[in-house]
Amino acid sequence: MSRPIKIAIIGAGSATFSLTLVRDLCASNAFPGSTICFMDVDEERLNSIHRLAARYVNELGIDLRFEKTLDREVALKDSDFVINTAFAGGHKVEEDLREIAERHGYYRGHGNTGHWGGTKIPYPHGFHQYKLMLDIARDMEKFCPNAWLLQASNPVFEGCTLMTRETSIKVIGICHGHYGYLEIARVLGLDPDKVDVQMTGFNHLIYLTKFEYDGKNAYPLIDEWIENKAEEYWRTYKPRYSENQMSRAAVKQYQILGLFPIGDTVRMGYWQFHLSLEAKKKWYGPLGGFDSEIGWGQYLEDLKNAVDRIFKVANDPTVRVTEIFPPKMSREQHVPIINALVNNVRGDFQINIPNKGYLKDIPNNVVVEVPATIDKDGIHVGEIIQLPPKIVLTVLMPRMIKMECEFYAFKTGDKGMLLAMMLDDPRTKTVEQAEELLEDLFSYEFNREIAKYFGYIQ
Amino acid sequence: MSRPIKIAIIGAGSATFSLTLVRDLCASNAFPGSTICFMDVDEERLNSIHRLAARYVNELGIDLRFEKTLDREVALKDSDFVINTAFAGGHKVEEDLREIAERHGYYRGHGNTGHWGGTKIPYPHGFHQYKLMLDIARDMEKFCPNAWLLQASNPVFEGCTLMTRETSIKVIGICHGHYGYLEIARVLGLDPDKVDVQMTGFNHLIYLTKFEYDGKNAYPLIDEWIENKAEEYWRTYKPRYSENQMSRAAVKQYQILGLFPIGDTVRMGYWQFHLSLEAKKKWYGPLGGFDSEIGWGQYLEDLKNAVDRIFKVANDPTVRVTEIFPPKMSREQHVPIINALVNNVRGDFQINIPNKGYLKDIPNNVVVEVPATIDKDGIHVGEIIQLPPKIVLTVLMPRMIKMECEFYAFKTGDKGMLLAMMLDDPRTKTVEQAEELLEDLFSYEFNREIAKYFGYIQ
Repeated sequence: MSRPIKIAIIGAGSATFSLTLVRDLCASNAFPGSTICFMDVDEERLNSIHRLAARYVNELGIDLRFEKTLDREVALKDSDFVINTAFAGGHKVEEDLREIAERHGYYRGHGNTGHWGGTKIPYPHGFHQYKLMLDIARDMEKFCPNAWLLQASNPVFEGCTLMTRETSIKVIGICHGHYGYLEIARVLGLDPDKVDVQMTGFNHLIYLTKFEYDGKNAYPLIDEWIENKAEEYWRTYKPRYSENQMSRAAVKQYQILGLFPIGDTVRMGYWQFHLSLEAKKKWYGPLGGFDSEIGWGQYLEDLKNAVDRIFKVANDPTVRVTEIFPPKMSREQHVPIINALVNNVRGDFQINIPNKGYLKDIPNNVVVEVPATIDKDGIHVGEIIQLPPKIVLTVLMPRMIKMECEFYAFKTGDKGMLLAMMLDDPRTKTVEQAEELLEDLFSYEFNREIAKYFGYIQ
Repeated sequence: MSRPIKIAIIGAGSATFSLTLVRDLCASNAFPGSTICFMDVDEERLNSIHRLAARYVNELGIDLRFEKTLDREVALKDSDFVINTAFAGGHKVEEDLREIAERHGYYRGHGNTGHWGGTKIPYPHGFHQYKLMLDIARDMEKFCPNAWLLQASNPVFEGCTLMTRETSIKVIGICHGHYGYLEIARVLGLDPDKVDVQMTGFNHLIYLTKFEYDGKNAYPLIDEWIENKAEEYWRTYKPRYSENQMSRAAVKQYQILGLFPIGDTVRMGYWQFHLSLEAKKKWYGPLGGFDSEIGWGQYLEDLKNAVDRIFKVANDPTVRVTEIFPPKMSREQHVPIINALVNNVRGDFQINIPNKGYLKDIPNNVVVEVPATIDKDGIHVGEIIQLPPKIVLTVLMPRMIKMECEFYAFKTGDKGMLLAMMLDDPRTKTVEQAEELLEDLFSYEFNREIAKYFGYIQ
């Protein structure tokens, strides 16, 4: 075991995520004497998660110390790892902006409806995230310049690219979407331990470049399933909102592009999949997938219930926390990555890091998602199977250019770029519609500062 | 004067263009003893234009010889210059394909409706052009490897890029769209001789990077006109279909992008300008611009009338051709460029050539449109003012990527790429709509060969 470390968790009020980290830290039991500093802007949530964590280690007799602070500088100071899970404004702002966009004819909001080009965060909301991420990375340059930043909140692709371009901080973007390949294995009836995969691309846009079962190419098994079993599966399936992996949307993307899309990639896809609830149901099943009003509504409710449950436990000193939330490893990669870097517990991960020729058609100043082995010496990327031109040209390039457009707007405050981006939305029928939506988005109170920046208000 | 040269004109049956060349050759009177070889697949048209040209020089007593052939090899053999004006299938095919697309909900056709991404030639029609251009350039490698190819027919951007990538032929793409700046001068009431401009980009996507009047930046004059006179102008103007330069569409593009679009660039613009005849009228005036059913209809009629007039003269040996079509220089650049290269009559031109760092954000294997001086030593490109990121990111890059997609489909016969491109059209509401349109386009007789190539038929 190495020396005790300090881990700062920014946006720790995201209770589910923080509790998962605490459970993983305890289950791995690899960081004796270490300190976890919770930071959030919501003091009440902060206090609750802090109390809960303290009780958690206390019940287990594990030597982990917890701090809490409203001050980012205090959290970052001398940290070895920073986990950023902060989402500026939270889901409330996201839903409000979506509602504004729907009033202007943008079903499910503008910019985050699962199109190829979508960041999952609508702009101008995305700009708040860019600013927050960049502020954190710049603060890290001051207060913990050698720390690793594990970026958990979205948009991982754009955010990690921006931070690695603009600061010297070591960034790893982390997601769990790649586990989607396990759903393929499950539906095909394969033993997951015999499945060998490689998936690459951008976060939320990854493709199965290698799919072997027992050492043999298993794509024919997918083809056979599509040929003989898919229609029956779709006729009868009742997927949870998060289960999109074997939807018609996934299969159609595969048929067009030649490789199977994995995880959140499936939620993206052609905008024609997302034009209406009816279209979403056709492509993603009865709930219309993760991003329909039904699917997303269930997700928000599940999230709320999970948080309520955590806070209920946090506020009830009579229950044993570890009985309700036992210390077993989740599938989140954060703690194992820290363990690999600190304690040399070598592991294979799926991470988002600046391209270094891994994807040959993508510039090196763009963050890509690749498999990598991590140990105390750092990140080791092995041989990467290249994505075919069809995916590079029709999926990755357009998304990359959209990112550059957003960065340009973010850096310059150029209104013309905002309008140009909006005119690129296939639902924008007239220039006036786009202009009116922008006016309305920028009169939303949370956007006040950036409304000034873009010249919408004085 | 240098030695006599041989000029091959491919697609010479395009009577208006061939006659213009003959007039320019005679007016410049700089190529004594030279041979012009007309080649076309339409023998009747070929004979007419050949007779007409012979009479033309005969009346003037100019020493130019004309040949005609249906055989491309004969035309190319030992040529010094090849002018390619051929349009595979001609307007008939274009209109038929447009009609098919309209039946599937694509107003004014698919792929050529003036969108940013449009090549002006719908696919699969564009693929015929790519094949024809590449065949000609490859034949040139065999029969006249040192000749210059002056590419006149569209798509100039894609075609010139393809030919310069795939062959060693020297290619110059030529257009006249850049003269649009003269319409700006006229509307603003400026003396065109005192106007100094620079325009760069891709063919049909060029922007006014320099606009000086009497040595001073004249953009403020445009701004003033927009502020004080534009509305009045738009209220009363009755532009010809070809006069789009000072339309609302041009001004809106300028306001969004920061530089004025020139010539055919104005016809492109946001797809929202082109959604319906009503939209086109709003943005391009009473005729709906060049690409509406009204404007394009008038263009085709004008073209037919011009051709009829030429053939009437060609078939009437009693009239003096030079009285009806006097030998004066047109504004076409072909003959002056030949004169510059052959006789060292140095001149300034607007041409399409492979990028050699002229536009720093564009790869060097892409053809760009830039101003250049030409003399017997070749092409000299001076200092190029760089286009702003907003134009590179939102206009040039998307168009370039669309070109790469078309090339990929062209080279591989990949059906998935065709579908992916079609789903990118904002008018494609469902995947089925796109699939059905493709089926219909590929069952059109002229597309039979490529339908096999793409696996639509056996």
